[in-house]
Amino acid sequence: MTSASAKFGSLKSGSVKFGIAQLNPIVGDLVGNGDRLLSAVQKLATQDVQLVLTPELSICGYPPRDLLMNHQFVRDMDLAIADLAKKIPHDVAVLVGTVSLNPQASQSGGKPLFNSAALLQGGEVRQIFQKRLLPTYDVFDEDRYFAVGEGGQVFTLKLQDQSSLRVGVTICEDIWNDEKFWGKRNYVDDPVAELAQKEVDLLVNLSASPYAVGKQKLRQAMLSHSAIVHNLPLLYANQVGANDDLIFDGRSMAFNRDGELIACGKGFEEDLLVIDFDQVASNPNFSSYESDDAEIFAALVLGVRDYVQKCRFSKVVIGLSGGIDSALVAAIATEAIGKENVLGVLMPSPYSSDHSITDAIALAQNLGIATETIPIEPMMSAFNISLANIFADRSSDVTEENLQSRIRGSLLMAISNKFGHLLLSTGNKSEVSVGYCTLYGDMNGGLAAIADVPKTRVFDLCEWLNRTNYPLAIKQGVTEVIPVNIITKPPSAELKPDQLDQDSLPPYDILDDILHKLIDQHLSSAEIINSGHEPATVDRVVRLVKIAEFKRRQAAPGLKITGRAFGSGWRMPIASKVTF
Amino acid sequence: MTSASAKFGSLKSGSVKFGIAQLNPIVGDLVGNGDRLLSAVQKLATQDVQLVLTPELSICGYPPRDLLMNHQFVRDMDLAIADLAKKIPHDVAVLVGTVSLNPQASQSGGKPLFNSAALLQGGEVRQIFQKRLLPTYDVFDEDRYFAVGEGGQVFTLKLQDQSSLRVGVTICEDIWNDEKFWGKRNYVDDPVAELAQKEVDLLVNLSASPYAVGKQKLRQAMLSHSAIVHNLPLLYANQVGANDDLIFDGRSMAFNRDGELIACGKGFEEDLLVIDFDQVASNPNFSSYESDDAEIFAALVLGVRDYVQKCRFSKVVIGLSGGIDSALVAAIATEAIGKENVLGVLMPSPYSSDHSITDAIALAQNLGIATETIPIEPMMSAFNISLANIFADRSSDVTEENLQSRIRGSLLMAISNKFGHLLLSTGNKSEVSVGYCTLYGDMNGGLAAIADVPKTRVFDLCEWLNRTNYPLAIKQGVTEVIPVNIITKPPSAELKPDQLDQDSLPPYDILDDILHKLIDQHLSSAEIINSGHEPATVDRVVRLVKIAEFKRRQAAPGLKITGRAFGSGWRMPIASKVTF
Repeated sequence: MTSASAKFGSLKSGSVKFGIAQLNPIVGDLVGNGDRLLSAVQKLATQDVQLVLTPELSICGYPPRDLLMNHQFVRDMDLAIADLAKKIPHDVAVLVGTVSLNPQASQSGGKPLFNSAALLQGGEVRQIFQKRLLPTYDVFDEDRYFAVGEGGQVFTLKLQDQSSLRVGVTICEDIWNDEKFWGKRNYVDDPVAELAQKEVDLLVNLSASPYAVGKQKLRQAMLSHSAIVHNLPLLYANQVGANDDLIFDGRSMAFNRDGELIACGKGFEEDLLVIDFDQVASNPNFSSYESDDAEIFAALVLGVRDYVQKCRFSKVVIGLSGGIDSALVAAIATEAIGKENVLGVLMPSPYSSDHSITDAIALAQNLGIATETIPIEPMMSAFNISLANIFADRSSDVTEENLQSRIRGSLLMAISNKFGHLLLSTGNKSEVSVGYCTLYGDMNGGLAAIADVPKTRVFDLCEWLNRTNYPLAIKQGVTEVIPVNIITKPPSAELKPDQLDQDSLPPYDILDDILHKLIDQHLSSAEIINSGHEPATVDRVVRLVKIAEFKRRQAAPGLKITGRAFGSGWRMPIASKVTF
Repeated sequence: MTSASAKFGSLKSGSVKFGIAQLNPIVGDLVGNGDRLLSAVQKLATQDVQLVLTPELSICGYPPRDLLMNHQFVRDMDLAIADLAKKIPHDVAVLVGTVSLNPQASQSGGKPLFNSAALLQGGEVRQIFQKRLLPTYDVFDEDRYFAVGEGGQVFTLKLQDQSSLRVGVTICEDIWNDEKFWGKRNYVDDPVAELAQKEVDLLVNLSASPYAVGKQKLRQAMLSHSAIVHNLPLLYANQVGANDDLIFDGRSMAFNRDGELIACGKGFEEDLLVIDFDQVASNPNFSSYESDDAEIFAALVLGVRDYVQKCRFSKVVIGLSGGIDSALVAAIATEAIGKENVLGVLMPSPYSSDHSITDAIALAQNLGIATETIPIEPMMSAFNISLANIFADRSSDVTEENLQSRIRGSLLMAISNKFGHLLLSTGNKSEVSVGYCTLYGDMNGGLAAIADVPKTRVFDLCEWLNRTNYPLAIKQGVTEVIPVNIITKPPSAELKPDQLDQDSLPPYDILDDILHKLIDQHLSSAEIINSGHEPATVDRVVRLVKIAEFKRRQAAPGLKITGRAFGSGWRMPIASKVTF
């Protein structure tokens, strides 16, 4: 047996082919995910790949969260892995993401599990590799479940020509600690650098890296840098699919030892990649979208589709106000699950403008979705009469505005309950930040589709939708799917006469900039004021963000598209008092 | 200068007095918490204490959560500590819980902060001690914010008689890893054992240990064991007060080196303790309540009072159904904030029984709280007429039941909005577990007062309330504050004619036992069936718990009283598929 490392290392000759199974698992569905893995490996095997890489925790889907605390679930994962090992073609080596037990935990302390990769080959589990760097920030809670793994993550892949390759295995965060790339270390250890010292021929990484705007560029630059620095080819398998608030974008990658991107999986859909380092040209733009708007739209479409389908719904219902937020959500839903599966409901009140109806109807016609119209005045009257005694001579205030929103929310939930449609809520990030929304009203819904999309981005996305050539299912001969009046009219909640958002809030470009600095950049009021904003405006926005915490705590999961969203990565006290 | 360790160590003579400031902070309120600490130290100083112990993170309150990610907040904590050091009497040493910067973080990796204790004396910060064991399980996320601290947590306390004591400092979890007590280690290191090797004279622990039923007995046994094993006196300062879902019960303790409890702070209220090891008798029952019911009731009263007050409300509104859950919540609220601050709202429907009204009125009279009555039939009619076209010939189902609940929820929120009352929701843990509740309906509220109380415990608590001699503010000459009929009648949601809970759910004693095994004990269906339950019942309950996850995700914070609650310590995926 001779070593293939020389020839493979040169990337100039040889016939070793690798597969990446970029799959969309359902969290917890060990049987279904196992079947999906088996099918992927079988397909890749027909193309003579000798090693298949799958995403992090691919047998259970990422993130499994507290399912990991159920012992039976962990035992079932072991059984699923053993079963998969038997079923896959025995001449292909497969790295599957799973967990393994920490034998030290019961006596010497530490968490009970390792986040692991199992090497399946020849009908059995040949070797287990452990994740060493455990992200515990933002949406990640890995220290909650996992012990820090041991080093030495190398195996020898025996090839069909009797040569062999030494493969270094890393799992997600393990590869995110290159001091030279970041200018600092995030963890003490750098597993990649350690592997590079062990004369490996190839680095592989099993990932479940959630989407955020611009993150793929960062990943690509970082992985390319690692390949160059260590002079090693690198394969990166990323999960695809949305799980609750997290969207995984896929875009798995292969780099040669010059750091050139030679293959990239599709964005936001499943893909099977066959990589032959000798037979592909590099292309640094494999994973690019024409714009951030195009990328975000694709992400949100996947987020809605997966939430609907993984929760075993087939249709959705959306309240159409004639405004831009519900228009965008309706467009996303139509693209995600088809026009025949989207129901728009118009619920005009005496305060609704004529254009709120005509604009909503025009939107629905452009999208080809069905609508229902239910005026809410009868319920408003019934509530007002019933509350008249108690409210006595108190004047109208936000109470009556919220009631309108709650009547609409109750109607939408009635339709959801009666027909089994999932209700999508339509609030944007700017609103949710400052609490410009009604709890148990317009916040109602199983999924908050654009809860992490700032209002200014909502406008951008709608304008992009109207001008794009992207082959959208929603553009059925209609150029401007979002009626222009929806984009150009001043935003209004229409909960009292002549109400405009800008009567209550700063202009959205100013608001969104303040919110970005406060939320994404963790700046204090003083720092935001120093950046050029009016002190009174900043203080007001900061106060509004603080007091809206009780609303966000009860919000539906919202699809994350920024670096910091109000979801599993946002953990703020409600009963508190802060002044920064 | 001679050492006082010999005489102090003997606990037989000497005049060293210690203070424990068991305080109730508002999370994030550095100024208010600093003032409270100052006032406590000043009071203790008048009693000649030479060292004052305060709870973990006492300057900012526990848990500060993501407030710690704001740099200005961290800088402000430093300023608050420096300010406090200047203001406190200079001849008293004070250990204050705070954070300190990890100087290694920016280059060598690791989290940016240490969870710390600052020793204030002589007008300045003399020394900083770091927490070493960082809980990251259940409700705790400390690895998210903190780096593991260094050892060597000892300081020398110079006494007024020119002698000195060596004091070993630990912070909360540091003292929860005694291998001999637990039969295993939870962490590799045992900071207490290490300190005991360093010839200290006294162990101190700054804690913020949340309440759960029975936990104080465990703490007392564990701390007593540590004192005995290491032959050292031990002072333990625990936070008191409720912060969102977490209730801190206080009950700070002092143990002599024989492990005898010689002082204990009050449960569920602020307390200042002066400990003179030579002048107090031991009493193992210092921290006991007459029963678990008495303890839980005290916990819930504090939980409601603090949430109301820390969120700057003064009054609450509660929907009174005539059932046992709302009766218990009304009693808790009345005890917490006074009968004049509780408004009960009756919202009968055509399906309401006569006794639902009479029982609710009798309860309100017993408690002395005001009530309003708003029949919901007019809103039911308005919704039904408005939805008639869309629902066409579909028969009534859960949709119409949920609508009644949502009308009530909207009425309660209207009253909350109009009068500024906080709405308390009344669902119990059994309901919330299996989803026997309506999202945006009876789940509405800022705080879910009994969301972690199983239904069987709700009955126990009401029976206890009726027979207790505990000096409850709510027992104004009334023996049975909870009308007996409320306890004895079969539970019903009264959302359709002759509806009973037991038509939809297993008997509550069976349901609660299954839920306890599933939720608290992490057992699988098979294990629960093996424990003696009907397979069909177990499968049904497990399925219901799973599919109710979307409701719980949008629930109000619920006061935690058990080992595992649906709150910050429950992190389950929604869009998932599991079979265990």
